[in-house]
Amino acid sequence: MKIAVIQFNPTVGDIAENAARIRDHIHQCTSDGVDLAVFPELATVGYSHHDLLDNTYIVDAIEAANQWLQREMPIGIAALVGTVTRNPSPTGKKLFNAAAFLEAGKPSRFIHKRLLPTYDVYDEYRYFEPAGPQDPIVYKGISLGVHICEDMWNWPEFSTYHLYNCDPLGDLVAKGADLLINLSASPFSHGRHELRNQLIGKICKTFALPFVISNQVGANTELLFDGDSRVHAADGSILLSAPAFEEAVLVWDTDSQYTALPKRPEHRVRDIHDALVCGIREYVSKSGVFEGLLIGLSGGIDSAVTAALAVEALGAERVRGITMPSKYSSTGSVDDSIALAENFGFSCENITIKPAVEAFSSMLAPMFAGTDPGVAEENIQARARGLTLMAVSNKFNYLVLTTGNKSEMAMGYATLYGDMSGGLAVLADVFKTDVYALARYINERAGRPLIPVSSIEKAPSAELRPDQKDSDSLPHYDVLDAILTLYIEQRLDADQIVLHTGFDPSLVVRILKSVDRNEYKRKQAPPGLRVSSKAFGTGRRIPLVMHLDRSSVEEMTKKLSSQVSL
Amino acid sequence: MKIAVIQFNPTVGDIAENAARIRDHIHQCTSDGVDLAVFPELATVGYSHHDLLDNTYIVDAIEAANQWLQREMPIGIAALVGTVTRNPSPTGKKLFNAAAFLEAGKPSRFIHKRLLPTYDVYDEYRYFEPAGPQDPIVYKGISLGVHICEDMWNWPEFSTYHLYNCDPLGDLVAKGADLLINLSASPFSHGRHELRNQLIGKICKTFALPFVISNQVGANTELLFDGDSRVHAADGSILLSAPAFEEAVLVWDTDSQYTALPKRPEHRVRDIHDALVCGIREYVSKSGVFEGLLIGLSGGIDSAVTAALAVEALGAERVRGITMPSKYSSTGSVDDSIALAENFGFSCENITIKPAVEAFSSMLAPMFAGTDPGVAEENIQARARGLTLMAVSNKFNYLVLTTGNKSEMAMGYATLYGDMSGGLAVLADVFKTDVYALARYINERAGRPLIPVSSIEKAPSAELRPDQKDSDSLPHYDVLDAILTLYIEQRLDADQIVLHTGFDPSLVVRILKSVDRNEYKRKQAPPGLRVSSKAFGTGRRIPLVMHLDRSSVEEMTKKLSSQVSL
Repeated sequence: MKIAVIQFNPTVGDIAENAARIRDHIHQCTSDGVDLAVFPELATVGYSHHDLLDNTYIVDAIEAANQWLQREMPIGIAALVGTVTRNPSPTGKKLFNAAAFLEAGKPSRFIHKRLLPTYDVYDEYRYFEPAGPQDPIVYKGISLGVHICEDMWNWPEFSTYHLYNCDPLGDLVAKGADLLINLSASPFSHGRHELRNQLIGKICKTFALPFVISNQVGANTELLFDGDSRVHAADGSILLSAPAFEEAVLVWDTDSQYTALPKRPEHRVRDIHDALVCGIREYVSKSGVFEGLLIGLSGGIDSAVTAALAVEALGAERVRGITMPSKYSSTGSVDDSIALAENFGFSCENITIKPAVEAFSSMLAPMFAGTDPGVAEENIQARARGLTLMAVSNKFNYLVLTTGNKSEMAMGYATLYGDMSGGLAVLADVFKTDVYALARYINERAGRPLIPVSSIEKAPSAELRPDQKDSDSLPHYDVLDAILTLYIEQRLDADQIVLHTGFDPSLVVRILKSVDRNEYKRKQAPPGLRVSSKAFGTGRRIPLVMHLDRSSVEEMTKKLSSQVSL
Repeated sequence: MKIAVIQFNPTVGDIAENAARIRDHIHQCTSDGVDLAVFPELATVGYSHHDLLDNTYIVDAIEAANQWLQREMPIGIAALVGTVTRNPSPTGKKLFNAAAFLEAGKPSRFIHKRLLPTYDVYDEYRYFEPAGPQDPIVYKGISLGVHICEDMWNWPEFSTYHLYNCDPLGDLVAKGADLLINLSASPFSHGRHELRNQLIGKICKTFALPFVISNQVGANTELLFDGDSRVHAADGSILLSAPAFEEAVLVWDTDSQYTALPKRPEHRVRDIHDALVCGIREYVSKSGVFEGLLIGLSGGIDSAVTAALAVEALGAERVRGITMPSKYSSTGSVDDSIALAENFGFSCENITIKPAVEAFSSMLAPMFAGTDPGVAEENIQARARGLTLMAVSNKFNYLVLTTGNKSEMAMGYATLYGDMSGGLAVLADVFKTDVYALARYINERAGRPLIPVSSIEKAPSAELRPDQKDSDSLPHYDVLDAILTLYIEQRLDADQIVLHTGFDPSLVVRILKSVDRNEYKRKQAPPGLRVSSKAFGTGRRIPLVMHLDRSSVEEMTKKLSSQVSL
């Protein structure tokens, strides 16, 4: 049997276009002698659809697309298409997350997803009813163990949040599946390719069955999809593997011999780079409204890396930089920005913010009389820059990319409506230490310092007051990022972080409190491209108004008891 | 038996303080001869805790508080306290949403929540395992049918999203419950008091049992809780009812005779008013960092109503207004603001934004040469105002309240980083037509026009270009709000809205598209106080990047079929 794995890039909500493209792929497969075409999870509506599925119009359209695709099936081929169906039961969630099995002249069959991820960026139980055991589909003499995304992840060593109390793969194998087929809409995070290697390797060896996975590719707002579709042999070795971040079709002939592919060398920084480029490109192409990309250039490494990624995504002719020096800006802040723009070939303009800062100073002078300059005055500069960028954005219809990194966003080291102004936060899920690694990777790949060495080597500074350095307010980024990684991505708390790192407990608690306290800024941040297993944004929901004591549980109990005895 | 219903106001995350206050209430109840004290759902951690529960430190602290409360129980009284417990099973979600039954000298017992709302603002399956059937608790000879919040809402006529396939109340009654006790953390929305009347009335009559509900009160960021705790007799009549939006204790003696309370007269506008005042007050008190409230006054009705609510919440001495006229501002915009401030007794300063607007015009002149003035220039004015407010906020540590209403936020009729700058969006869930009703209510209650009549009667305008009126870009607010209510709150789509209203289909589709297209602005909006059953914010999750065709399903199918035949 010839099985085609279609690594498909749907646009969220564009059901007619997605369905038309699914049909075209199926017809192309027929010409290529394919027996079965496998599309990703939710290919008709795109992931993540979010609350579009609360809308009866959308569900009607998806069901119409399901029926239309069934009618359009050519003879001799079957297709597995990730889609949505209505739950006919009067109780339970109203929809199923489904794989439609389509074959000309036969009624459509639907396999329903059993395990519904409801954690991090996933809200699937918000929409879908979890299904009970599903039967394999026998097609051309082969029993296909069709299942959907999370259904394959229920193993103690691969479960980050919790195990489910049922076993979708085991049930399919017990019912005689000859081959496991997974339809996924599983987003990229760095390290996930290798994790998927290990998981699928384990599944193949456990059941002695081959494994096919068709995963969504592309980007939808903050979620990036590398695809990473593949075919594994029963011994776990990889027979076919799709390229990352692009649509692709793999065709596997179950009767042919394949040489196992070598393991792809791990390259975390390259993967993050490629993911961010995909995220920028697709935000613009799927929005369909922007002429190009606009970036405020500070001469620092964050804006330099953001600009480099923007050029890679859309080409230098659609990228525009603006330097906006103030009296606290070093000469390097303009010179390095001009050098950067020249190296990458994009235009760079210079608008000094002095007139605006002076205007606000005079406007506010009566009210601010007798106060010392401080955060208010610093933020005026950042906000005058944000306002300038947004004016140019509005005038020429350019999308402003913000340049703040994950370390800064964690600590609140950014100005709301200032440097946080923009439509897409490119580096919001990249720690500062990784921004350096990205800069080095970009220069190494080019074989020359496209990003000026001085941007990489200078001490980071917001340049909002004389001789300001990030290190005035923040610990060294190596230390900071280590603590932030454990707190945010590994979800450890102060005690455990101290245990892991040996850092000073008061430093650890100070950093955690700063992260907690600045949730209000992140609430109003533009969407950030997600490249880690835990990004700020929809996957991390923290109350804005709260009071966390952060004393240890023992201290808390002691304090409670002593209060009572008073 | 004497049962005390403690309408309790927890602070999210402040477990030590919440536990100490729960203990104090219990001890006070003992002095009052109470047999059973009933606290709301999740009283130890506060609702909504969101992802704090992913944090082992928080869960450890909650379990320590559970144990400490057990140790602190006086003799002769029992308490039901909403809290969290760990799920001992190796599979399933790691926590239960629990009611701890505490009695001195006996081990704690825990009743677990069965129905976990996972829609709108609720994410409970993100954290909790749904429990199976629970037993009533027999205490002092009475069988208590203890259950938690959503467990009571599973009726076809009261279910907005879906029915669950089990029956928590029926199961408790079948097991002999003499009395139903519900612990809730059920937020306010207008009309919910009467809905709760009908629901509990129905439950009492169905089972011929009395009903006690203890609900959280106060506000936590966007969620507002009126409490609405009560005791119903077995015939459904209301025996005791707690005041709205304040902590209160109801004591019900099951052996005494009560006269049924008359139905509280419905007053939608008063309820919204009181909810918003509570939301502002508690945002400031629970944040614990702001000196007062700052409002940009335009002379229009939105900023006038926001200021009136702010004064009601914190007192005039903690409210500060700023008028920021431009060359397009009418004289009324300043005069009406000054009159407003005088009427309410708060300070009002005037900062003309002309110097800033001129500075940006000159800074951008080279780049904007040859272009026509448009949105870019309009937004510069709004953003110069936002920047001014934020500077004053930073300098004096005042919380900026934004003034945009739900109609504007729906249509994107607002400037990001301009009038959307601030920490709390007071009217973001109040349609413009209701803002008028609030203004009239405020003046009627005062017996004089505290809000200047001219602010109410003038044609709404953003005053960003000569003679601009809202009606240049938007339909009349009566029409707009009717369509928006059906689309957003009733979740109907274009066809159904046309059917309901008879409005022009092209107008309806134009409005829906505008709502869809402006999600990117709302993504960066400050949190809004939720007063309806469907507010923008965490309860409404719409993709930013998507493509919705909005042609009918028939048209879509026709178009698809015709494409193929080409």
